[in-house]
Amino acid sequence: MGRIDTSKIYVALLHHPVYNKTGAIVTTAITNLDLHDIARTSTTFALGGYYVVNPQPAQRELAGRITSHWVSGFGAEYNPNRGEALGNIRIVSELSDVLENIEQRCGKRPKTIATAAKGAEGAVGYNRMRETLEEGGPHVLLFGTGWGLTRDFLASCDYTLKPIEGIGGYNHLPVRSAVAIILDRLLSNR
Amino acid sequence: MGRIDTSKIYVALLHHPVYNKTGAIVTTAITNLDLHDIARTSTTFALGGYYVVNPQPAQRELAGRITSHWVSGFGAEYNPNRGEALGNIRIVSELSDVLENIEQRCGKRPKTIATAAKGAEGAVGYNRMRETLEEGGPHVLLFGTGWGLTRDFLASCDYTLKPIEGIGGYNHLPVRSAVAIILDRLLSNR
Repeated sequence: MGRIDTSKIYVALLHHPVYNKTGAIVTTAITNLDLHDIARTSTTFALGGYYVVNPQPAQRELAGRITSHWVSGFGAEYNPNRGEALGNIRIVSELSDVLENIEQRCGKRPKTIATAAKGAEGAVGYNRMRETLEEGGPHVLLFGTGWGLTRDFLASCDYTLKPIEGIGGYNHLPVRSAVAIILDRLLSNR
Repeated sequence: MGRIDTSKIYVALLHHPVYNKTGAIVTTAITNLDLHDIARTSTTFALGGYYVVNPQPAQRELAGRITSHWVSGFGAEYNPNRGEALGNIRIVSELSDVLENIEQRCGKRPKTIATAAKGAEGAVGYNRMRETLEEGGPHVLLFGTGWGLTRDFLASCDYTLKPIEGIGGYNHLPVRSAVAIILDRLLSNR
């Protein structure tokens, strides 16, 4: 099995366009635990970075205050490991910012890999996606908050990954757990 | 590959005896997100249950108030999926309560499988542990909060699982992410 250069793999957490529980398309709020947990998991797999994507300026400002506490404020001294992880966060408005930023960092536009809790037509399995990643990056894995990325958004991505199937019918994995399982399946040394 | 009866697999999150960042043995506080995320992940894999273990009565009372909000209070109506997951939580004082409760439910004392972020002597790999689980349960996976379960505690368990190795040197995965990755490695259909 080939090696994957994980520094060319990115994660982005999108707060828009996602469904809410009634199926309306909304913008969700940034949560503190999505910042911490996904930053720590991304750093464990030595990713190129973690983008937090939200179109609302007040939300981005809040996220910036939280991350700077850990990166350069009191938290940096109290728990430097958190600063290392949260220093890998970039807070941006929309997906095009993510793609441009990765292009600046890698010299090449990334391919987009959407994730979804429900199966999509043409969704790619984990072994095949590993092979694609081995061929070289950059790639960005896109995760939705709320009740998931919209169908139109999913259709606009280069790939959609197959959903994580548990045992039995419960299909409400936290996005933080989904990120952990997907990075482990795609990137861990076996 | 054989089938694992996940209804005979349990998770327990221990708030004592664990290390704090200075290496002292402490009791940590229960967090809301450990309740929600680990309950949802455990339910995704159709486990027999999720034990939250804390020797402090005030901590157990708080956890009970949170879970009952979602299981029988306003949250049950607002988001029944949360109630389904948090209904699988049992809040107890210590490990012996976990073992007795599982023995009552399964008619047999469970084997204990400790997890740790650092390698331990004789630690078991994931493929070998899957084979052990296929031979039949009950088994309980033990996770520590804070800076991890104490060495003496680990030594008292039937098995210790190999740590999750990421890429590069960052070894500070959230316990919530570790639970997700470990359940996926041990229990998911491949």
